[in-house]
Amino acid sequence: MITLASDFGSPYPAAMRGVVAGRCNARLLDVTHDLPRGDVRAAAFWLRETLPWFPPAVHCAVVDPGVGTDRDAIVLRAGDHALVGPDNGSLWPAARAVGAGGGAVEEPSDGAASDADVEAFVYDYENPASSTFHGRDVFAPCAAAVHEVGVGDLESLDRIRPASDPADYRFPEPTIEADEAAGEVLVVDGFGNVVTNVPGWFLDGRDAVTVNGERVPVVRAYAAVKAGTRVATVGSHGNVELAVNDGRGDEAFGLEAGDRVQLESDDD
Amino acid sequence: MITLASDFGSPYPAAMRGVVAGRCNARLLDVTHDLPRGDVRAAAFWLRETLPWFPPAVHCAVVDPGVGTDRDAIVLRAGDHALVGPDNGSLWPAARAVGAGGGAVEEPSDGAASDADVEAFVYDYENPASSTFHGRDVFAPCAAAVHEVGVGDLESLDRIRPASDPADYRFPEPTIEADEAAGEVLVVDGFGNVVTNVPGWFLDGRDAVTVNGERVPVVRAYAAVKAGTRVATVGSHGNVELAVNDGRGDEAFGLEAGDRVQLESDDD
Amino acid sequence: MITLASDFGSPYPAAMRGVVAGRCNARLLDVTHDLPRGDVRAAAFWLRETLPWFPPAVHCAVVDPGVGTDRDAIVLRAGDHALVGPDNGSLWPAARAVGAGGGAVEEPSDGAASDADVEAFVYDYENPASSTFHGRDVFAPCAAAVHEVGVGDLESLDRIRPASDPADYRFPEPTIEADEAAGEVLVVDGFGNVVTNVPGWFLDGRDAVTVNGERVPVVRAYAAVKAGTRVATVGSHGNVELAVNDGRGDEAFGLEAGDRVQLESDDD
Repeated sequence: MITLASDFGSPYPAAMRGVVAGRCNARLLDVTHDLPRGDVRAAAFWLRETLPWFPPAVHCAVVDPGVGTDRDAIVLRAGDHALVGPDNGSLWPAARAVGAGGGAVEEPSDGAASDADVEAFVYDYENPASSTFHGRDVFAPCAAAVHEVGVGDLESLDRIRPASDPADYRFPEPTIEADEAAGEVLVVDGFGNVVTNVPGWFLDGRDAVTVNGERVPVVRAYAAVKAGTRVATVGSHGNVELAVNDGRGDEAFGLEAGDRVQLESDDD
Repeated sequence: MITLASDFGSPYPAAMRGVVAGRCNARLLDVTHDLPRGDVRAAAFWLRETLPWFPPAVHCAVVDPGVGTDRDAIVLRAGDHALVGPDNGSLWPAARAVGAGGGAVEEPSDGAASDADVEAFVYDYENPASSTFHGRDVFAPCAAAVHEVGVGDLESLDRIRPASDPADYRFPEPTIEADEAAGEVLVVDGFGNVVTNVPGWFLDGRDAVTVNGERVPVVRAYAAVKAGTRVATVGSHGNVELAVNDGRGDEAFGLEAGDRVQLESDDD
Repeated sequence: MITLASDFGSPYPAAMRGVVAGRCNARLLDVTHDLPRGDVRAAAFWLRETLPWFPPAVHCAVVDPGVGTDRDAIVLRAGDHALVGPDNGSLWPAARAVGAGGGAVEEPSDGAASDADVEAFVYDYENPASSTFHGRDVFAPCAAAVHEVGVGDLESLDRIRPASDPADYRFPEPTIEADEAAGEVLVVDGFGNVVTNVPGWFLDGRDAVTVNGERVPVVRAYAAVKAGTRVATVGSHGNVELAVNDGRGDEAFGLEAGDRVQLESDDD
């Protein structure tokens, strides 16, 4: 199985599908091609949230603001999975999460794996057909090649060599002290839900929480409150999420990716 | 075969694809993930328009404004098809249409099947990994489980029991008397075409029709008139559709989903 | 393999997937369903950019402003590929490009094939279920039928006959004299990159070029310049592309599809 992810929108991913389908018989599944453009952090987040749910696969994931520069093409091996993409850090959180789980798990791991579970390789490419579309000309061929030799044997490929200093990306850590959490918005999803970096357990046993000075209820379901009401909940990623039932949390809370979020609670 | 439909946009559906692919070898086809958000009626309409064209499959269709509340997970069996999703009525019009046709039909049925063609079951889920993403944590696993035992044998699953009082959804009926039809806009499609609930035969033999007081030609092809001209036609769903050649009917007619539409004709 | 392309957005393509899956066991891959609506030139461009990267397949590609009129349904055979869609010219540039390459090529051809590499057939359809959705009712069934008999034997189908005068489409040619090129914008992609019809070699050996009177650097990578800076580069299609690093070229240059572009250079 080969999965494809990118920020290419449409129709560029079609060329990647064609290249892969022309080089191997792998089953082909799209992850998404609507990742925020050129946003390495958002890519890192969404790849970590989606790739661990797949069975063993070669994941070709391309958010690549440095396309055409001398940045490397990287292959990360984590368990029975391989992740292929540009060396800008975007693949690492997903690789650590996949490596901790390994295979078709009931539930994906919490990403607590150490880097020791991930091996990094460089894929040496030469004279790609374009300098602006390495998804088609570098990463799709690389993913097909890795699939053909098998993830466990990928170092048998001539163009593969160990990576000495690959770029990593780590999400910002929140500061949590007793009833206060100082965190940050990681991403806003398509529903307008505001995903923070504060772990969901901060809301355990609480009925309400103060978000940047305004008190909102803590709920398990958006529909636990009237339409238009602001809430805090634990999102599907396990973090504190700020939302509005039947509305957009980003607009109601006035928050976007990168903004600071101060959570306080005194009712436990 | 398992099909996936939702209002999740991107990238959430990737996790559903991964969960299904990790649990069974079913062929996986997307219906759409761009259904209008939280809109049960629009979901009911588009599922009815698309699912009957598929060969026998398990259809996992999730438009679920009540996610995390105590609403049931429902499985409808209709012929060789099963539909899996939240118990909010969104699956029933499609189930009736599929049940009337049965299998890989030349043309889908007209949805005239009775409820007797559809059997309803509840899927008892426990402690899903999240309370906000049952597409990934409840419905995708359920669809994979139904696929693995087979639609005809789905009651052999431990978690499946007959549904006693499932939520249904029925489209509003128009009032038609001689040359007048009082109907409603069901949905506006991505082209801006206004889909009404008035059956297409109302236009039979007519050259023009008055829509909320304005006379427009009745055509078989959008391009039968000049660009920018308003028309009435019979859409691919079999209903009266209000459109503009090379333009948006919703803007030209000033209509959106739920609006009343009065059609009159005196030229037959 | 059958590929699907259209300007239908969502969810209409689901019905095409269902029809094809119900009629044959072909592997099914989407090209895109977000082609600019009713835009034959854009369809011609993007099909030419994507289809040649696929291995041999039946490509069902429907951008069809004349749906429901008496325009023909056309099938073009090019090498081991067949292209199925409306007879409005949109398939020809892709067919010529595919015909020149033939099969699962390392790199697609440059489209320099002659028309002699392409054979054109008419598919005679009768009384389709709708007059507004031939993607579902005419072209998907046709693509499945061609796939079932095989591209090499498609004339064995009863409804297939040679086309006598199919509509063609050819991109406008630029005028290039020494250091000046007078061209046109073919399309703007989803990143806002402005794709011209001026061949990339016009930039060979140049460090800068004047675009409609303003001088911009010629680069190999968007990230070769600061964010927000305008550049000219050779895009993945091989043509001169006008872009902005981490921004939208169409807005910065004030250009859209069909606009004239005057390129000048004196530094070679």
